[in-house]
Amino acid sequence: MANKVKEIWKSGKAVVNAWLAIPSGFSAEMIAQCGFDSVTVDIQHGVQDYQSMVQCFQAMDKHPVTPMVRVPWNEPGIIGKVLDGGAYGVICPMVNTAQEARNLVSYSKYPPKGVRSNGPIRAGMYGTAGSYQKTANDDIVLLPMMETKTAVENMEAIFDVEGIDGVYIGPSDLGFSYGLEPKLDRSEPEILAIYDKIIKECAKRGLNAGIHCSGAEGAARAINMGFKLVTLSNEVGLMTTFAKMQVNATRKDSGGKA
Amino acid sequence: MANKVKEIWKSGKAVVNAWLAIPSGFSAEMIAQCGFDSVTVDIQHGVQDYQSMVQCFQAMDKHPVTPMVRVPWNEPGIIGKVLDGGAYGVICPMVNTAQEARNLVSYSKYPPKGVRSNGPIRAGMYGTAGSYQKTANDDIVLLPMMETKTAVENMEAIFDVEGIDGVYIGPSDLGFSYGLEPKLDRSEPEILAIYDKIIKECAKRGLNAGIHCSGAEGAARAINMGFKLVTLSNEVGLMTTFAKMQVNATRKDSGGKA
Amino acid sequence: MANKVKEIWKSGKAVVNAWLAIPSGFSAEMIAQCGFDSVTVDIQHGVQDYQSMVQCFQAMDKHPVTPMVRVPWNEPGIIGKVLDGGAYGVICPMVNTAQEARNLVSYSKYPPKGVRSNGPIRAGMYGTAGSYQKTANDDIVLLPMMETKTAVENMEAIFDVEGIDGVYIGPSDLGFSYGLEPKLDRSEPEILAIYDKIIKECAKRGLNAGIHCSGAEGAARAINMGFKLVTLSNEVGLMTTFAKMQVNATRKDSGGKA
Amino acid sequence: MANKVKEIWKSGKAVVNAWLAIPSGFSAEMIAQCGFDSVTVDIQHGVQDYQSMVQCFQAMDKHPVTPMVRVPWNEPGIIGKVLDGGAYGVICPMVNTAQEARNLVSYSKYPPKGVRSNGPIRAGMYGTAGSYQKTANDDIVLLPMMETKTAVENMEAIFDVEGIDGVYIGPSDLGFSYGLEPKLDRSEPEILAIYDKIIKECAKRGLNAGIHCSGAEGAARAINMGFKLVTLSNEVGLMTTFAKMQVNATRKDSGGKA
Amino acid sequence: MANKVKEIWKSGKAVVNAWLAIPSGFSAEMIAQCGFDSVTVDIQHGVQDYQSMVQCFQAMDKHPVTPMVRVPWNEPGIIGKVLDGGAYGVICPMVNTAQEARNLVSYSKYPPKGVRSNGPIRAGMYGTAGSYQKTANDDIVLLPMMETKTAVENMEAIFDVEGIDGVYIGPSDLGFSYGLEPKLDRSEPEILAIYDKIIKECAKRGLNAGIHCSGAEGAARAINMGFKLVTLSNEVGLMTTFAKMQVNATRKDSGGKA
Amino acid sequence: MANKVKEIWKSGKAVVNAWLAIPSGFSAEMIAQCGFDSVTVDIQHGVQDYQSMVQCFQAMDKHPVTPMVRVPWNEPGIIGKVLDGGAYGVICPMVNTAQEARNLVSYSKYPPKGVRSNGPIRAGMYGTAGSYQKTANDDIVLLPMMETKTAVENMEAIFDVEGIDGVYIGPSDLGFSYGLEPKLDRSEPEILAIYDKIIKECAKRGLNAGIHCSGAEGAARAINMGFKLVTLSNEVGLMTTFAKMQVNATRKDSGGKA
Repeated sequence: MANKVKEIWKSGKAVVNAWLAIPSGFSAEMIAQCGFDSVTVDIQHGVQDYQSMVQCFQAMDKHPVTPMVRVPWNEPGIIGKVLDGGAYGVICPMVNTAQEARNLVSYSKYPPKGVRSNGPIRAGMYGTAGSYQKTANDDIVLLPMMETKTAVENMEAIFDVEGIDGVYIGPSDLGFSYGLEPKLDRSEPEILAIYDKIIKECAKRGLNAGIHCSGAEGAARAINMGFKLVTLSNEVGLMTTFAKMQVNATRKDSGGKA
Repeated sequence: MANKVKEIWKSGKAVVNAWLAIPSGFSAEMIAQCGFDSVTVDIQHGVQDYQSMVQCFQAMDKHPVTPMVRVPWNEPGIIGKVLDGGAYGVICPMVNTAQEARNLVSYSKYPPKGVRSNGPIRAGMYGTAGSYQKTANDDIVLLPMMETKTAVENMEAIFDVEGIDGVYIGPSDLGFSYGLEPKLDRSEPEILAIYDKIIKECAKRGLNAGIHCSGAEGAARAINMGFKLVTLSNEVGLMTTFAKMQVNATRKDSGGKA
Repeated sequence: MANKVKEIWKSGKAVVNAWLAIPSGFSAEMIAQCGFDSVTVDIQHGVQDYQSMVQCFQAMDKHPVTPMVRVPWNEPGIIGKVLDGGAYGVICPMVNTAQEARNLVSYSKYPPKGVRSNGPIRAGMYGTAGSYQKTANDDIVLLPMMETKTAVENMEAIFDVEGIDGVYIGPSDLGFSYGLEPKLDRSEPEILAIYDKIIKECAKRGLNAGIHCSGAEGAARAINMGFKLVTLSNEVGLMTTFAKMQVNATRKDSGGKA
Repeated sequence: MANKVKEIWKSGKAVVNAWLAIPSGFSAEMIAQCGFDSVTVDIQHGVQDYQSMVQCFQAMDKHPVTPMVRVPWNEPGIIGKVLDGGAYGVICPMVNTAQEARNLVSYSKYPPKGVRSNGPIRAGMYGTAGSYQKTANDDIVLLPMMETKTAVENMEAIFDVEGIDGVYIGPSDLGFSYGLEPKLDRSEPEILAIYDKIIKECAKRGLNAGIHCSGAEGAARAINMGFKLVTLSNEVGLMTTFAKMQVNATRKDSGGKA
Repeated sequence: MANKVKEIWKSGKAVVNAWLAIPSGFSAEMIAQCGFDSVTVDIQHGVQDYQSMVQCFQAMDKHPVTPMVRVPWNEPGIIGKVLDGGAYGVICPMVNTAQEARNLVSYSKYPPKGVRSNGPIRAGMYGTAGSYQKTANDDIVLLPMMETKTAVENMEAIFDVEGIDGVYIGPSDLGFSYGLEPKLDRSEPEILAIYDKIIKECAKRGLNAGIHCSGAEGAARAINMGFKLVTLSNEVGLMTTFAKMQVNATRKDSGGKA
Repeated sequence: MANKVKEIWKSGKAVVNAWLAIPSGFSAEMIAQCGFDSVTVDIQHGVQDYQSMVQCFQAMDKHPVTPMVRVPWNEPGIIGKVLDGGAYGVICPMVNTAQEARNLVSYSKYPPKGVRSNGPIRAGMYGTAGSYQKTANDDIVLLPMMETKTAVENMEAIFDVEGIDGVYIGPSDLGFSYGLEPKLDRSEPEILAIYDKIIKECAKRGLNAGIHCSGAEGAARAINMGFKLVTLSNEVGLMTTFAKMQVNATRKDSGGKA
């Protein structure tokens, strides 16, 4: 089955990605109809686990979005499970060295490229029967996260690891690691210089750089910088931001009556 | 335990109410921090049932919002369960006659005012030990829904039923019943005339009229008409509305690059 | 959205229906890929409730099967909920009189044909935005169950009720009601005569008769009799029947070594 | 509490094992009544996690089957949890070296044989009060999986590790590792030669070799080769295989009418 | 399958019953090992629903306790579901008239004694295959609750209804109905007189009277009065009562150090 | 947000801690009202996982108890998840060396003290907006478990690790490791000598020692020895202990009638 994320990248465009923290198939299927290209279940910081991921994927399957996962850690047990469960992309936190990137590739690909175990219980439903194992190594997107000073220092070695499709920036942790406040949509010159280098080094190798943003403004800016995948906050952030705006508007426009 | 909805009404103001369709304690606790006065779990049309209601209530309990429920039907089994589970308000669909309103009161109140069975498994945690049963009949808000032509025709008889605290308008069903399209925030003169009469008849009797709105604009308008409780869409509607706005803005502001 | 069951009936053919008792989206999505035309979640006798139905529907949505439900009882609360949750057909147990059939129709259809309340939280995703409410009354299949002597005696009055699409036979209960053993795939002459009459009276009125069978043999026989919807046991029955066959074959073919 | 798997092995016979991928206590308790000797919850590739395993075990407890688990990875956290939860056998994927096999033993046995932590929250219910900790080291079956070329090369060292009870073959991954297609019930001579060696080396040491099969035919063949534990596909495979057979038979035997 | 409750009654003894409010199979299986004769899942006031009942029953099945349910209301949908799910006894709240008791019997028994629909999805596992439907009408215990003044006034008519096995007293609601405080273990003379009459009228008819108690003291007293089934609080009450005792003892015995 | 455990320690007193094995928000919220200072969700040996921990925390949030977790293993993925989910204390099993203690600290603290990743999805609700990341390193309690001979031998090196707040003794595993029976409330002189040394070495460094006890008697003794945190069995142990006492009392006090 074609991976929409890879297709968009082939066309030279950027992917608009959603992020799921609510462990509910219902909110997942609603988000899947909002115009995103891909939807990522966040098992690291979201209120998600493997079973809630399965429910989100089942509920999204009908809609034209690529199902991805941020795993909680670079560990073969959970990486195998999310891929078998239907993830068509893996975002992996805290990949700081080339060896850690190689581990991620190894856990995620079938032999001879890696040591992933065969048993795609839900993923095997993609495409024609029996085709999944033949194409999975090529179809699945692997994005190690670059979110520490160490990782930045190892940037080129990490980018040279065969089998990754790009990188995903975690601006909060990256800033934290440089002694800055944890926040998204950063504008510190030293961080922007890192972004710039990431984008150039990715472009050289045919890789795509993604980044976590707090909303449309930061996301559009990131695309204009050269990022090829942007995440618009998470779904619960979208919900509460708008809820607060609406409550305030209601109270204001009813002139003190509420 | 004091019911914030009743306190706001005593102060002459209107209540800004949230509406939960997502069966998740996590989204509930996030909505509970957005500035609403009350939060209603919708077991009728939402993807909710008794157990998801309990989880939503548990997750909201720490926050200063009144927990309410829209029950799926005017039936004593479920009304007893939501009250025992901690509902401090019941919105009941399709109450078309005074007898149906009397049934709602009877199912919801302890003797001698009704036939509610004793066993407030979670609700009993409110207030000091043993106090709940003494105050529940007075504290809990009962709002029959007025959403059919029949109900409108029986308006005064319904409003005269002792034990209800007001009424809740379902504009979609009300319009449907009059042969109009199902939608919220209505402006047809015949509907506005009904609203006007509802508000006046409620005011006469010290009752409060609530209404389901599609967002801040309709809600502020409703408060300005005299409604005393307004619901701002449901949480999933807030989420998807804003998600679509953000996706569109991202695509637009990145100039065709996404 | 077109209802595949109605389309098959228009073509003059019979529908092969699956029946879900296991409360799991995963088994539902697997059954949805086995060649059935429709899949019914059995909330009456299956280990199912509203929330497990939602998960089954979400997991089936991608596959070309019509999602249906057998409700636990002819009660407006649950009928509204399953329709809002996405049921495109309702099978209702123990409909013994024309009045009970009229109640089923009333609970299931929007005004003016019935009193269904508006709020198709998942069903509204079918078709283009806003189209659901305009077509639901025509698209949804309503099948009262005929499974008692009383119902048989009231057959013609029941079939004359406007808004039903046919009838669904429960052979176990029907036999029970006539003092026979509860079982499927019956061959008692008095029961076959009833089936014959049902099929003829349905045909007269453009209705379609469905029946619960224990497997392919009984189902093919039923189709050949004129039934237009056959259920092949439930999914757990298919599983255990084949599991026992496979265990026995393993033991037998290993010559006493297991 | 006696472990049925060990008793069967003592009698010289082979164990017929079921495999659970559906996260439901209900399907587990139905499978537990189909004649299997043991039932394994597959947390690696199945749609299972720790909590669904507990539900499956609770539902199976009444029936005479040994509860086992395939863990997702050779990791002490999850191995401890499944044992405490009541697993009476652990099948561990991707054990490629003697050291990895020693780790498995260490994680699974109480001191002095290993470092398992005390707290058998459900397993402690087995046998008389307080007896579990005294017998668990002997009662629980440990089966490292042999499913790579590396493991085959280390076969004898792995088999010499004290504390394992045998080995479990994963034919798909094993073939994958040798550059063959991933499938079960293999007949390539080089694979059969490996099987032969495994069985002989196990027999020498009083160990028992198990293997994953696609159904009764392969399972009987495996028993006849000398395997002492055979798995008959998983429950969802049994279900869908038979469902497709039944749908096809229904359509065929109704002569084009469905 | 023999019903332990009925066997104890035949022996002339009283049944000690547990009451489950926590929706967890794990707490259910632990309670099932504490020496109770029967365990009742309380779907009326407990934090329970049909699915949690199934999990509790699955976890209890191995242990020698009779599984019973208090349903939320005298309604055929839920009564059918709990019986199919494996309840071997039904306690039904608020049965105030002979007609209501007849309804309960009708919903609970197969034809010709009632209108229960055939489909004992879990209950059918009891006994030998196919035997359940033949014995269920005799095996299942039906206990309408007597908990209002109206019910007391209709006592003899209710007790004369064929098919009930006794009655269950709800002392809180009964007191409420007579204008007294809602509490268990009552000692008001007018209530004791009612108890006395209930026990005598039951004895006359071979019926057994049960009663809800707050703990061992009240339960022993009730047995000594002639009650034949006593409930010892619910499991969460046992837990919190002892937890508070233990916390207080810890603080006290550590002399102000905690 | 202030951590009550740290405040009690500052006052020189001992903390009375509850322990949750039942995966239910309802039992958690009931235990949270019994007078404990802190409540620990046991993901290692309890029937708990990340999602049940979230539900327990949501249900406890309103009550004045510090939410803590025992993680299943010293692994960064799960430690990050429980902290993000709202744990205000982490008890980590099997910490045997200073390096393992340093790992625990590193996984649990934000830079520059550790490598915890930013994303406190629920924990961020504590305190004023944005304050959590600034205070978490100081507020969260870290207690490595000392439960093996190796750990005792490394005691001083472990206690010297910067960032831990004390230690938690697992008496069962500790005894096991010394060749003794696994049990709580130990009185062997060699174990008491170890306890004595632990308390002294902790006191020297301003650390606090906690211990797992079987009930009030052992807990009070431990506090009197100098332990600063005592756990009173788990909630399910409290429940079953008291249930058995009550059943026995009922049978005894009813003189053979039950």
